[in-house]
Amino acid sequence: MTTVDPARVLRDLRELHELTGGPDGARRLCWTPVWLRAREWLAERLAALPVDVELDEAGNQWATLRGRSPRALLIGSHLDSVAGGGWLDGCLNVVAGLEVLRRLAMFGPPPLTVRLVSWADEEGARFGRSLFGSGAAAGHLDPDEVRGLRDAGGVSLPEALAACGVDLDRAPDAARRLEGAAAYLELHIEQGPVLERLGLPLGAVLGTFGVERHVLRFTGQSAHAGSTPMDARRDALAAGARFALAVRDAAVRLGGVATVGRMTARPGIFTAVAGECEVALDQRHLDAGALAVMLAEARAVSSAIAAEERVEAAWERTWRIDPVPFHPDLVDLCERSIVEVAGRCHRLPSGPLHDAAEVARAGVPAAMLFVQSLRGLSHTREADTLAEHLELAVRALDRAVTLTLEWASA
Amino acid sequence: MTTVDPARVLRDLRELHELTGGPDGARRLCWTPVWLRAREWLAERLAALPVDVELDEAGNQWATLRGRSPRALLIGSHLDSVAGGGWLDGCLNVVAGLEVLRRLAMFGPPPLTVRLVSWADEEGARFGRSLFGSGAAAGHLDPDEVRGLRDAGGVSLPEALAACGVDLDRAPDAARRLEGAAAYLELHIEQGPVLERLGLPLGAVLGTFGVERHVLRFTGQSAHAGSTPMDARRDALAAGARFALAVRDAAVRLGGVATVGRMTARPGIFTAVAGECEVALDQRHLDAGALAVMLAEARAVSSAIAAEERVEAAWERTWRIDPVPFHPDLVDLCERSIVEVAGRCHRLPSGPLHDAAEVARAGVPAAMLFVQSLRGLSHTREADTLAEHLELAVRALDRAVTLTLEWASA
Repeated sequence: MTTVDPARVLRDLRELHELTGGPDGARRLCWTPVWLRAREWLAERLAALPVDVELDEAGNQWATLRGRSPRALLIGSHLDSVAGGGWLDGCLNVVAGLEVLRRLAMFGPPPLTVRLVSWADEEGARFGRSLFGSGAAAGHLDPDEVRGLRDAGGVSLPEALAACGVDLDRAPDAARRLEGAAAYLELHIEQGPVLERLGLPLGAVLGTFGVERHVLRFTGQSAHAGSTPMDARRDALAAGARFALAVRDAAVRLGGVATVGRMTARPGIFTAVAGECEVALDQRHLDAGALAVMLAEARAVSSAIAAEERVEAAWERTWRIDPVPFHPDLVDLCERSIVEVAGRCHRLPSGPLHDAAEVARAGVPAAMLFVQSLRGLSHTREADTLAEHLELAVRALDRAVTLTLEWASA
Repeated sequence: MTTVDPARVLRDLRELHELTGGPDGARRLCWTPVWLRAREWLAERLAALPVDVELDEAGNQWATLRGRSPRALLIGSHLDSVAGGGWLDGCLNVVAGLEVLRRLAMFGPPPLTVRLVSWADEEGARFGRSLFGSGAAAGHLDPDEVRGLRDAGGVSLPEALAACGVDLDRAPDAARRLEGAAAYLELHIEQGPVLERLGLPLGAVLGTFGVERHVLRFTGQSAHAGSTPMDARRDALAAGARFALAVRDAAVRLGGVATVGRMTARPGIFTAVAGECEVALDQRHLDAGALAVMLAEARAVSSAIAAEERVEAAWERTWRIDPVPFHPDLVDLCERSIVEVAGRCHRLPSGPLHDAAEVARAGVPAAMLFVQSLRGLSHTREADTLAEHLELAVRALDRAVTLTLEWASA
C-alpha cells in the first residue's frame, strides 16, 4: 500500500460508533467507561503498528512512530464526545491519523518523528472544563482552578480522573510532551454551515476565534403589568431586548459573531414588568482588535440603553480567550493539500475552540483542516458528513502531513 | 358621632396588621389559619354593630345593616393577601367599610340596606385562581374548572376549602347573594404610580382593563454560537426581542399597556443560538376595540418578524377577559365625593382586576375609588400609602356611600 485507504477509515469510524455510540449519538463522555473503551479500541488498532503507545499524566493517549529526527509532527484530536453527540466529532482525526500512521509505517522512518495524540476531555461536557488534556500539555492547566468542579451527579473532577488513573496534581507534567514538537495538524468537522453553503467539501482553518463571554445584568423596577403606564416603566427585559439586537447588528458590521443565547427576567411572570434581566452574551472574532471593538461597543451601547430605559447595567466577565491564529505556512500547506485532492479550498476561521488552539498558544506551529458538516449541525446525533467528503478529508490530511514533514525538515 | 372617624380606621388597620402581618408583610393567604384569624377579627368588630353577619357558600363574609328597602348597596373588598403582601391591599376597604357601617348604624335604618362583604380569595395567590368569592357570587365559578388546582405543597383547592368549611360544589350557590344589589362600591389602593405622579391622593376608577394573555413561541434553529455566521442564523431569541419591543411601541401608540415579563430561550446557553424562544405577553386596554387592535397588530408583527428572521411563530392564549367599564353615574358620584374631600380628582382605569369587576359583570352598577400608592408599589411588604391619604380615602368612601344611597333611592 502506497497511500491511505479512506474506505478503511470509514469502516473504523463505523466500528467505533457501534462500540461507543448508538441511535442516540456518541456516548464517549470523558472519564467514563465508554470513553475508556474507545481508548482501548484505539490501542488495539495501534498495536498492529511499529509505534510506541503511552498515556501521559493528563490522560492523553500518544502513539509515536520514530523518525530520523526526534523533532516531531503531531496529529491530534479527541475521542471524547458530548452526551448524544455526533459520531465524527473529534474521533474523525484520531481515526484518520491512525490511517496516516499506517501509511507512513510502510516506508521506514519518516524524516521527522510522527506522533498521533488523542487528547483527553476536549469537550468538557461532564465538568464544564474544555480542552483539559491539550491545555495540560500546553501548560495552561492549573489544578486548583478545576479541583472543585463536580458533574451533575456530584462526582468531583479529581475523583473521576482518579478512576481513570489520572492524578490531577500531576496532570500539568504532561506539558513536557510538547517538547520537540515541530508542527501540529488537526482535521475536524466544521460544525457550522459555511462549507456547505459554498458547496465545498474542505476548508483550511485560519485560526480560532477569540471569545468574550459576559453576563450583563439590567436592573430596573419590577412593577404591576396592569397598573404601571408605559411611560412610568423601568423595564429591564426591554433593555435586554434592545441590547441583544444592538450587539447582533454590531457583529454583522464588524465581521464577527455575537450571540445572546439566554435572557432571564425576574420576577419572570406575565403580570410584572421585569425588574431585572440577565443577558448571556458571547462575542467572537478572529482579530483581537476587532473583538476588543465589539466588546467596547457593546459596553457603550449598554450604557446608552440603560440611560434611555432608566435602568442600571452591570457587566460580569464569565470567560475570555484571545484569538489564536494558526501558522501561515501551515495554513498554506493545508490549502494546497485541499486544492490537490478536491480542486478548491475556502479559508475560514473556526468559531469553536479546538485542541489545536491550545497547541498553537504553546508556540507550536499548528493548522487545521475542516470538512463540511451537513446542515451545519454539531453536538447532536444528527450531525453528519457525506462519506465522499470524509474520504476526501482523509486524503487531504495525509497530503498535508507529507507537505508538513517536508516543510519541517527544510 | 355624626361622621366617620378616619383615625379609628387607621388604628383598626394597624391592629389587623399586627395580628395577621409582620415585618415580611401581610400573611393573610386565603384558606389558611391567618386568613381565618383576620375574618374572625372582623366578626369581632362587627359584633358591636346592629348587623347580621354570615358566611356564604363560597366563604365570603357578609355584614348586613337592614335599611328601609331590601334593595342593597354593597361595599366590598377582600381580607386575603398575597404572601408577603402590602398591609393595605384589600383590607383597606373592608376596614373603611366597617367604619361606614358604624356611622350609618348611628342614624337608624338607611334608605337602602347596606351590606359589607369581605370576598374570599381575591388574590388567588395560593391556587392561581383570582376572584374566587366574587366570581362565585357573580355566577362565574365553575367548580370543575378549578377542582384540580393544587398549591405548592400539593394540597388541592377542594381540600383547602373544606378545611375552611366551604364545599366547592356548593360555592356557586353564593350567586343568589347578589340578588337585590342596587349598587357596589369599592375603595382600593391604586397599586400603580399614576396618582402619585399627578400629586393627587384619590382617583375615580373608570373600569378594569380587558386582558389578553398569550404565550408566543418562536421556533428557529439551535446552532453553534461560534461556527454559525450571522447571516446563517435562525435566531428565535432575536425574534422574541424584536417582538417584545414592537408590542411595547404599539401599546404606547394605542393607549394601552403591554408587557413581556419573560422570555425563555432554549437551549438557553452561552454557546448556542436559541432554537426556541417562548415569550409571555400580557396586553391590557380599557376599550375592547382597542385591545382587539393591539392583539391583531401583535399577531401581524409576529408574522412579519418570523418571516424576516426565518423562524416560525405560534400563539397560544393563556387567558383573556373583556374590559369591564364601571357605571357612569357611579363614577361621577365617586368623582364628586373625591372633589368634595380632596379638592381634585383624576379619572383612571384600573390595570389590575378587582372584585368590583366581577360584580359589574354580573350587572350590578359598580364603581371604585383609588387612593395613591407610594412609589406605585404593590404585592410587596414595601407597598404603602400616606396616613393623610388614607384618612381622605375613608372620608371619600363615606361620602360616596351617602351619594350612592341617594342615587339608588331616586
